[in-house]
Order: sequence, then C-alpha cells, then structure tokens
Amino acid sequence: MEIPIEDSSPQPTRYALTVEYDGSQFNGWQAQIGVPTVQEALEAALSRVANHPVRVTGAGRTDTGVHALGMVVHVDIPEAECRMDARKLLLAVNSFLPVDVRIVAARRVPEDFHARFDAKGKRYFYLIWNHAAMNPLLHNRAWHVKVPLNLERMQKAAKLFVGRKDFKSFASTREYEMESTVRRLTRCDVRKEGYTWKITIEGDGFLYKMCRGIVGTLVRVGQGELTQTEIRQIFRERDRSVAGMNAPACGLTLWRVFY
Amino acid sequence: MEIPIEDSSPQPTRYALTVEYDGSQFNGWQAQIGVPTVQEALEAALSRVANHPVRVTGAGRTDTGVHALGMVVHVDIPEAECRMDARKLLLAVNSFLPVDVRIVAARRVPEDFHARFDAKGKRYFYLIWNHAAMNPLLHNRAWHVKVPLNLERMQKAAKLFVGRKDFKSFASTREYEMESTVRRLTRCDVRKEGYTWKITIEGDGFLYKMCRGIVGTLVRVGQGELTQTEIRQIFRERDRSVAGMNAPACGLTLWRVFY
Repeated sequence: MEIPIEDSSPQPTRYALTVEYDGSQFNGWQAQIGVPTVQEALEAALSRVANHPVRVTGAGRTDTGVHALGMVVHVDIPEAECRMDARKLLLAVNSFLPVDVRIVAARRVPEDFHARFDAKGKRYFYLIWNHAAMNPLLHNRAWHVKVPLNLERMQKAAKLFVGRKDFKSFASTREYEMESTVRRLTRCDVRKEGYTWKITIEGDGFLYKMCRGIVGTLVRVGQGELTQTEIRQIFRERDRSVAGMNAPACGLTLWRVFY
Repeated sequence: MEIPIEDSSPQPTRYALTVEYDGSQFNGWQAQIGVPTVQEALEAALSRVANHPVRVTGAGRTDTGVHALGMVVHVDIPEAECRMDARKLLLAVNSFLPVDVRIVAARRVPEDFHARFDAKGKRYFYLIWNHAAMNPLLHNRAWHVKVPLNLERMQKAAKLFVGRKDFKSFASTREYEMESTVRRLTRCDVRKEGYTWKITIEGDGFLYKMCRGIVGTLVRVGQGELTQTEIRQIFRERDRSVAGMNAPACGLTLWRVFY
C-alpha cells in the first residue's frame, strides 16, 4: 500500500537577475569542481538568502577572464523560504557576494521564462589599449596592443562581419558542436577615444570564442597584416586556422542580453 | 697630503616622466620603509635600468588608494650608465615595473626642470557609482554612493568652489602646514553618464585631502543634506569639521599636471 505524500511546498518564484562581474579572478562562468566560477559564487550567495540550495541558469557562458555588465540569469526561489520583493532580494544577495560580482537588477518573471532559450541576442564590447605602455587602470580590462592600429581600415573591415554569415573561420571548434555555424550579426563597429579602442559586436547568437576571433582578425587588419579581400576569402574557407588569433579574454565584456 | 680626486663622471641627463598607476595596492606615492609605495616601485625599476641608484621627484603626493593617469616626475640618470633615448628608457623601465604602474611618456628636459616647483596646476577627477549595487568593474575605482543624488543641485554647488578662495574648511590639517590655505580653482564640475558620476577639479594648487573634502561636501549637497547657502557659510567658518566627510580615496585620480 502506498502512502500518498502531500506536496505542501508552495510554488517557487522565478526571478530574472542582471549580473555584473569582473571575470579576472574567476575560471569563467560555469560551475566546475575545485575552481572559483561566477555561477558558483552566485549560487552560494543565493542559497544563503533562500536558505535552500538553488541553481541558476545563465543566458550563456563566459570564458575565464571575460567580464560582464549585463549577464542575465534565472533562478527559482521557494516562496516559503524567501518572502521578499525583487529589490530586497538584490540587496540581500549582494551582501553575500564577493566584491567582483554584483546583481544590479532583479525582477519576478513568469515561471516559463528561460534566461538562455528566450535570449534573442547579445551585445559584447571589446576594449583595446593601443599605446607603447599599458594603462595600469585597464590591466585585466583591455588588450594591450603596442603596434599602432589603422582606424579606417578596421572600420571598413568590421562591416564585413555584419549580416547573416557562416562564422566557422572565426570560432573555435568544440567537439560537441555539430550544429550550424551560421549566425547573424546586427552590429560590428570600431570606435576610438584617445588610446582606448572599443569594438562593439551584436548578434542573434555567438559561436564559441567567436567575438575574440573577430577582434583578433580586426586587429590584424589594423596592423596592416590582412586586407578586406583576404577577410572575404577567410569567410569562404570555413577554417579557423586561416583567420587571426583569438584576442585575449580580458578585453571582452558581455554588455547586454536581449529578450 | 690630499690626493685630488678627478671627477670623471659625465653630467647626468634629466628626464620628465609621465606616470600612470592604479593606487589600490600601494600605500600612496611617497617612499616609506616597509610598505609598498609608487615612488619606491618607480625608483627600483629606474635604478635597475640606470644600473645606479636613482631618486625621483614627483609633482606631488597621492594618498593610499588614489590613482594617477598623469603624475609627472623628474629623474636624473647618469649618461655613462644609460645611453638611451627617452622612448627606449620608457620601454626598459616598464619591463621592470609591477603591472599597476606604467611610464606612459618620457622626454629629456633641461637640468633645471623641477616636477614639483615648476607645476602650474593640476587636474583631478573623482568617480562616483550611484546605484543600489556597486559596479564590480569599478571596485577600487569609484565611490559607491547608494542614495540617489540630485545632479542639478550638485552642479550649482560645484560652481561655488571655482575661483580664488580660502579652502581651509575643505582640507585636512597637517601639523607642518603653516602656509596660506588660499588656492585658486579654475574648474569644478559634475557630469553624469548612466550611473557613473564624474567630478572634475582643476586648480593652481591643492591642500591636503582638499579634493576629497570638496567631493564629500558635494555629495552631501546631492543627497539634500546641505544647501548652497550652507556651503557659503562653511567657507566663511574656515573649520574642517563643519564641511562634509572626505570622499574615499579610491574614487580619486590625478589626471594631469600643468607646466
């Protein structure tokens, strides 16, 4: 005879959180045993506030050293354990987070909201410091490129990345990635203010290390090592080894996720 | 009988160096026994390149935690030990400096150039992050003010600091400071972009902790705790205890020294 178990636990509430972090001291986003990750730091702080172990689901992953100003995650918190509005949740969780991670916005969302599957696009920016000497205030925040870059050439080349294209040549292969390597970029532009160069890349989806592959290629253009014609050829070859190197992680920031 | 010693050492060359640093990990500018300072780090690196102990003279001091984008120092390097042009000197010294200090410009100057006595003025900026949650990418770079600030009130109040005034109420007393507390500010303005507030202060000279006293007072204005009339009264009282608190060091950056 089975004894019916009454489920008395109330429905949990789903929150969407906007998270900023300095990725310098983390082994990337995704939780791994034995190394500090942003996801783990968030889950530890949320679990303390919820008084219950919780898991977060991010809009995507970021690599070791990559930063975020607008990562979005969703998390379910049991109502019984945590009766608080979104703003109180934000303040409470922040008090348990290390200084390099902060929740900057929190809102209740419908229980079917999904931070990853509902994401319609993302915007990243990449910072370069183009001067013989590195700016110490941008250490771990920008790529130090010593050779002078040509702005006009990079701006023209950046336009070649906008549109629906096969980005196989600009992304790193991951064994399990058997799906299409076609993505649509809606923005790829280069601006400069003083010695700080900012490359903004926006699109409906990104392959693994694709942003850093694009930036590494654009910098080769800026240094006069690649032409626009060659970039068109690289697109056609669909081979990662023909494009520029990956730009270092430290210069990359996940700026915004669109829903 | 005295043996005449022939002085065969050639005349040293004087260089002016522009130095940037992240002050977070230093006990301020000035060399002190047993604690890391920016001056010491610079002297150690320069001495290695010069193969000779050298001392640097800065345009001024900065406190623990204060940053610089344009500190200027002068240094004498014996020609015999260091035959190199200014650009090579820059690259060589930077290779011996910790990541949080960099020489960004170097030029030969006449031997009577003096980084401190020849300085005609300085410009600082102060960063505030005005949001319930701190921006992790501005940790140690900006003051986290959680209470919303009123921009217009602060902009009006900032104008009261411009001109030739007695800043005694806004500076910290140092025992040995018997000189005048009158200084002339040529600029004091408040701008905001998103949650980042930037206060720019420029003048012919600054008393000890004067920038931080002004910023602390302006923030009290922005929070509605002080009026313009009260600031005029604080100027008249010439008493540090009546003005606002000192803003924390981490938000302050020495931006430029004028010659």
